[in-house]
Amino acid sequence: MEIKRVNEQIAKVRLHGPGPSDVPASVLDALSARTIGHLDPDFLRVMDQTQEMLRAVFQTKNRMTIPVSGTGSSGMEALVANLVEPGDRVAVVRNGVFGGRIADEIARFGGEVLEISLEWGTTVEPEQVKKALSSKKCQALFLVHAETSTGAHQQHMKEIADIVHEHGAIFLVDCVTSLGGAEVKVDEWGIDAAYSGTQKCLSVPPGLAPITLNERAMEKLRKRETPVQSWYFDLTMIEQYWTEGVSRKYHHTAPVNMIFALHEGLRLILEEGLEAVFERHRKNAAALQAGLESLGLRYVVEKPEHRLPMLHAVFLPEGHEEGKLRKRLRTEFKVEVGGGLGEFAGKAWRVGLMGHSSREEKVQALLRDIQSVLCVRPVGPV
Amino acid sequence: MEIKRVNEQIAKVRLHGPGPSDVPASVLDALSARTIGHLDPDFLRVMDQTQEMLRAVFQTKNRMTIPVSGTGSSGMEALVANLVEPGDRVAVVRNGVFGGRIADEIARFGGEVLEISLEWGTTVEPEQVKKALSSKKCQALFLVHAETSTGAHQQHMKEIADIVHEHGAIFLVDCVTSLGGAEVKVDEWGIDAAYSGTQKCLSVPPGLAPITLNERAMEKLRKRETPVQSWYFDLTMIEQYWTEGVSRKYHHTAPVNMIFALHEGLRLILEEGLEAVFERHRKNAAALQAGLESLGLRYVVEKPEHRLPMLHAVFLPEGHEEGKLRKRLRTEFKVEVGGGLGEFAGKAWRVGLMGHSSREEKVQALLRDIQSVLCVRPVGPV
Repeated sequence: MEIKRVNEQIAKVRLHGPGPSDVPASVLDALSARTIGHLDPDFLRVMDQTQEMLRAVFQTKNRMTIPVSGTGSSGMEALVANLVEPGDRVAVVRNGVFGGRIADEIARFGGEVLEISLEWGTTVEPEQVKKALSSKKCQALFLVHAETSTGAHQQHMKEIADIVHEHGAIFLVDCVTSLGGAEVKVDEWGIDAAYSGTQKCLSVPPGLAPITLNERAMEKLRKRETPVQSWYFDLTMIEQYWTEGVSRKYHHTAPVNMIFALHEGLRLILEEGLEAVFERHRKNAAALQAGLESLGLRYVVEKPEHRLPMLHAVFLPEGHEEGKLRKRLRTEFKVEVGGGLGEFAGKAWRVGLMGHSSREEKVQALLRDIQSVLCVRPVGPV
Repeated sequence: MEIKRVNEQIAKVRLHGPGPSDVPASVLDALSARTIGHLDPDFLRVMDQTQEMLRAVFQTKNRMTIPVSGTGSSGMEALVANLVEPGDRVAVVRNGVFGGRIADEIARFGGEVLEISLEWGTTVEPEQVKKALSSKKCQALFLVHAETSTGAHQQHMKEIADIVHEHGAIFLVDCVTSLGGAEVKVDEWGIDAAYSGTQKCLSVPPGLAPITLNERAMEKLRKRETPVQSWYFDLTMIEQYWTEGVSRKYHHTAPVNMIFALHEGLRLILEEGLEAVFERHRKNAAALQAGLESLGLRYVVEKPEHRLPMLHAVFLPEGHEEGKLRKRLRTEFKVEVGGGLGEFAGKAWRVGLMGHSSREEKVQALLRDIQSVLCVRPVGPV
């Protein structure tokens, strides 16, 4: 069997898809630090620091703030497995692929879904949430803060949280794509539980799902009548391993090196400063948007104020085959952009400026490459 | 917030516990290779090669042979979630911690457990399996091939598989600790589904769970009457992403860099040759055993032929506090050994010679360090 080493067989690709994003060298350094035991005192300190930094990025004081040992989707499953009991009804805002995915999750765990179905590319208004929650008693409302399939940026988070709480439900949020690239104010907004992924704006390879649960969510978990329908994601056990100061109870062997990488990714973000990071994402997004529109690409999300800074879903100009052009970008220019998902498969691109991929010089290079494969001249300056 | 980089705050520890084991430099190199997209053609090739090498190490032709995107325990959950339907009865050999864990898993997924309870440190005899399966109709039998909590090495695998099949059940095996360090002949023995972990004899950091399912297991999965009770671990969807040649259907973002590391770990094992790797584990185990016994440590597993080569569970001589000595080993000698689990907590050590940690010079250094903390002279030569 003749198989080359990985390092000899992968191209240098600039990552401008919907994740993974470019990973800084120091994060890769941390990833490949010497492996130590999952109960080693040095590792326990790294865990504590990782939790502390995760809380800073989630803008929360929640004790239960940890990385789940799986990729972003495992964070979704962890939330549903722990917080949705058989028989619970959950209102789900469905305005893209990920609202559909959680509806599937909820059904598998015995919950009932009350769908708030919207046109893809739009976001939900507080009035729509109020109407849905008034129509039927729900135990939770779920929405996606940054919908990766459409590029839509949910607004009115605090207002929606208030409505959810007035109706005696908990507020569950997917911030896989937004965390570390735009404001996610867990405590101020009143989010009860949220999950994210490492491979988007945290600029860490895929493999961990940061989650955070406040006391209201933890109370719902503790008051369950049935056991959590997952051993691997059972937070009542996992919290005993991740709690500082008490005796650490082994649950499963933590993904040590991935946690090293997350530690460094978070450290870099906090070193730059959350506000500066968000401003960088906004600034580069504006430049990309001006460039893409001048090349004739049309945003899926119509209202500019509802567009995400880190993920740009755009329709190609008439007459272009997206798959073919995307392949050329990868092959000739060594750039990855994402194809459309769900309703937009074959029609749209998803262009990411996430975390370390959101750099001024990278935006300019990306626009030049896109212009080359489209063979068009920009309308106005790029 | 003043937090140092990970690389500046972790000690160089030699890993001789129950996993993680020492990771070779080239595996850490692969781990920190430049991140690429989970649908990138270069990554798809790496996936194919990883599957090919995993099959070689599992000694199987099973098409469905993949790394699950979670740590070893997620492999257990994946098997149970997919192969145990509500109402199924599963006979579980319980001779240590991990038989207990899977009983918990099975109950959570709606299955019924028929326990074959044994004294810890012993292994099951084919006759006992026959008796249990004859007593009540079971859909599956589960056993642990290498019980990490006791160091017991299950024998008679083929004979047991035959009995299981005669009773119309499927044979599920935990080979977390054995894979890559001792024979695991999935096809020859007749194992229908098995899972492992990366951080033991594969010498890759924790974070992935290699699994393999044969056609009998896949048929049970396809004939389920109820959907798989997990979205994240649903193999009917995951197989569409992991199947070579067909259009790869995105399920979740694969843990790209961890798969790079697994690729290199497997490559190293196959480069050395499976038989040579097993022989190295056996030889070093014999040396360690002679040394430990000469220092007055007594094996949990009485019969030498039932002891694992990669994990040595031993009782300390009278009058020694295991926790205190283990701490001294870590602090003064920078060596990690594991404490006892379950029944053996506070009484035994678990000493690992797994994968890259099973090297002649490492065994000698380890024995010297253990001798130092025990402050005893060996009975006979070490």
